[in-house]
Amino acid sequence: MDGIFAKRTARVKPSTIREILEVATRPEVISFAGGLPAPELFPVAEMRAACERALAENGSAALQYGASEGLRPLREYLQAEMARRGAACPCDHILISTGSQQALDLLGKILLDPGDVVLTESPTYLAAIQAFQYSEPRFVPAPTDGDGLIPEALPELIAKYRPKFLYTIPNFQNPSGVTLSARRRRDLYEICAERDLLIVEDDPYGRLRYAGDDIPPLKTLDERGLVVYLSTFSKTIAPGLRIGWIAADPRLLRPLTVAKQAADLHTSTFAQHVVYCYLRDNRTEEHIARIRAAYGQRYAAMDEALRAEMPAGFSWTHPEGGMFLWVTGPEGLDTEKILPAAIERRVAFVPGRDFFPDRRGGNCMRLNFSNAAPDRIREGIARLADLCRAEAIGPTP
Amino acid sequence: MDGIFAKRTARVKPSTIREILEVATRPEVISFAGGLPAPELFPVAEMRAACERALAENGSAALQYGASEGLRPLREYLQAEMARRGAACPCDHILISTGSQQALDLLGKILLDPGDVVLTESPTYLAAIQAFQYSEPRFVPAPTDGDGLIPEALPELIAKYRPKFLYTIPNFQNPSGVTLSARRRRDLYEICAERDLLIVEDDPYGRLRYAGDDIPPLKTLDERGLVVYLSTFSKTIAPGLRIGWIAADPRLLRPLTVAKQAADLHTSTFAQHVVYCYLRDNRTEEHIARIRAAYGQRYAAMDEALRAEMPAGFSWTHPEGGMFLWVTGPEGLDTEKILPAAIERRVAFVPGRDFFPDRRGGNCMRLNFSNAAPDRIREGIARLADLCRAEAIGPTP
Repeated sequence: MDGIFAKRTARVKPSTIREILEVATRPEVISFAGGLPAPELFPVAEMRAACERALAENGSAALQYGASEGLRPLREYLQAEMARRGAACPCDHILISTGSQQALDLLGKILLDPGDVVLTESPTYLAAIQAFQYSEPRFVPAPTDGDGLIPEALPELIAKYRPKFLYTIPNFQNPSGVTLSARRRRDLYEICAERDLLIVEDDPYGRLRYAGDDIPPLKTLDERGLVVYLSTFSKTIAPGLRIGWIAADPRLLRPLTVAKQAADLHTSTFAQHVVYCYLRDNRTEEHIARIRAAYGQRYAAMDEALRAEMPAGFSWTHPEGGMFLWVTGPEGLDTEKILPAAIERRVAFVPGRDFFPDRRGGNCMRLNFSNAAPDRIREGIARLADLCRAEAIGPTP
Repeated sequence: MDGIFAKRTARVKPSTIREILEVATRPEVISFAGGLPAPELFPVAEMRAACERALAENGSAALQYGASEGLRPLREYLQAEMARRGAACPCDHILISTGSQQALDLLGKILLDPGDVVLTESPTYLAAIQAFQYSEPRFVPAPTDGDGLIPEALPELIAKYRPKFLYTIPNFQNPSGVTLSARRRRDLYEICAERDLLIVEDDPYGRLRYAGDDIPPLKTLDERGLVVYLSTFSKTIAPGLRIGWIAADPRLLRPLTVAKQAADLHTSTFAQHVVYCYLRDNRTEEHIARIRAAYGQRYAAMDEALRAEMPAGFSWTHPEGGMFLWVTGPEGLDTEKILPAAIERRVAFVPGRDFFPDRRGGNCMRLNFSNAAPDRIREGIARLADLCRAEAIGPTP
């Protein structure tokens, strides 16, 4: 009888991250595993005021069904926000999504048939792999280095695999922390445009830069409507609201809106009103500046602790923003294997393999630095380094 | 170049309902089209208090990422709620969804391969058709009458089509308003259980009974874990929160949770906290009693007006709860064709064809009676009846 539950159910594996997160939420564990923003920086008082105003100004309309596209004033705010990021997107090129994660799900639904190819960075965001997997595509990794995707490698891959789209996180990539340089953005867009290749530009972290200068999104180069731009308020306000957005050409936005309607009718009207009131009534740039400063300090604390503590044979990336850095250990290290020992030592990370569709990256791990204060970061890295030293000596038989 | 946007994008049509809704939201139109609850009954003041308490009690935790399964206290509340409805569902059989619509999307994802058969009532909920369509199943309608699905018709259909599941709305069905009798629930469960057929029991309206006695859900008969029960707070609190739930056997709930994680990570933590505080701190039964009384009056107003105004050849259902009734006109009437004329007369409805995967029901229409006060209902039915009389005489050439 179990057969009746079986069909598609075994295809997509639960994310290791979320299973680890369960354990890692215990207060005694210093977790570098999750992708949690710093909760002490959430604008709680401002949100209370925004709830109050959303209901006072709109009454029951703030609680009623709404349009699948999203709340008009919020979409108008986002039109202005896209302009501030350098991209001209009329309001009707913008769709509100239930977090950025939903945008990935909707794109998979409208674009991917089984066997279609998705070009990704390598490593790439594991929950994008998960979202797309329901459409059963093949993932083809494109090579990257410290400046992100290597444009020169793309023409051959595009010719060989005829991908449906390229999925990229140009700013402070998850998991690597790496940023695509301005020059590469231009080259990459040109290569894709010449070949009519859609680009899904996922930009949840772009506003979290704590060093260096902002680099305009690929969307700002997009004369031909080939870039689907995704972003979110999860990192600049709070993730528990689940408000993200998609900016795309109407040829894509229309089917995305239909898919959105089938997926959850629309994103919470109430959450949209609250976010809109918050954005309208607060100095959001000052708030984001505080987040940037705090994450910069946390990154610096982690980088310093890694330098001081880690044994030879380990290297890591040096992101200028975002929430993650990426550690590469010696060949032969298996970060999946040492994770239980790490949890025992009350420190958590995400093993590298989860970020590669082909399960490479066994000697890598992703570390989050946004969720713990500098002291906890130093203590956590000390515990982790202890373990890595023990591993380097070799486990006792 | 348009080809690159084309692949899956043309497969699923936007719902006529939502396009009509755009027009029908103009204040001069009396709309029986949408499925909108009465906004004047939303507990706005109580929601303000609930927001205040959710943030005061939980602080930033109310705004942080959460578990895909949903907020534990809300799931415990739902365990008790399921018990009140007669079904023993442990907390870990319950998943919070972003409205009931998402539950349909997730079920399609984990259960349906292209070509799989879904047994539905005929007519059935159009947004369920839409949600499932992304998995490209075949819909096989099962016959219904004034007591809902006819169990005797099922064995042959099950043997012939080997459906993946039966999708049913036993209480005050959308669109027909019809309720499956207690005796038929027992027969239907037995027939499905003998044949290992999953039942998706969609119950958004069960608490909205204004006449007669409650009939226990199919889930209360479910000794074998074959019933996936869906419900929502959209009709008893407010739809703009997008909080629904799924109660199902863990063999299904586990893959549903993985699919949920890929779809939107989790439902808004904040909305879940707010709903939980509202439920904990208010006399919700008294609130629901007010909704039931109001909808009963509105139904009575619509039924009376239909009796007084409609020309010969029209009949309609007599629901004991919910938000809709179903009008059948004379053979040859095409309700899709007369809709523009209706909008011109400032009254709106949903044409019957949208509720049949095979586009039958051309002479039918769905009327919503929850969203307008009795006076507006009388006026709207008078306008509609005028049009129907003109149609019966025949359009001027």
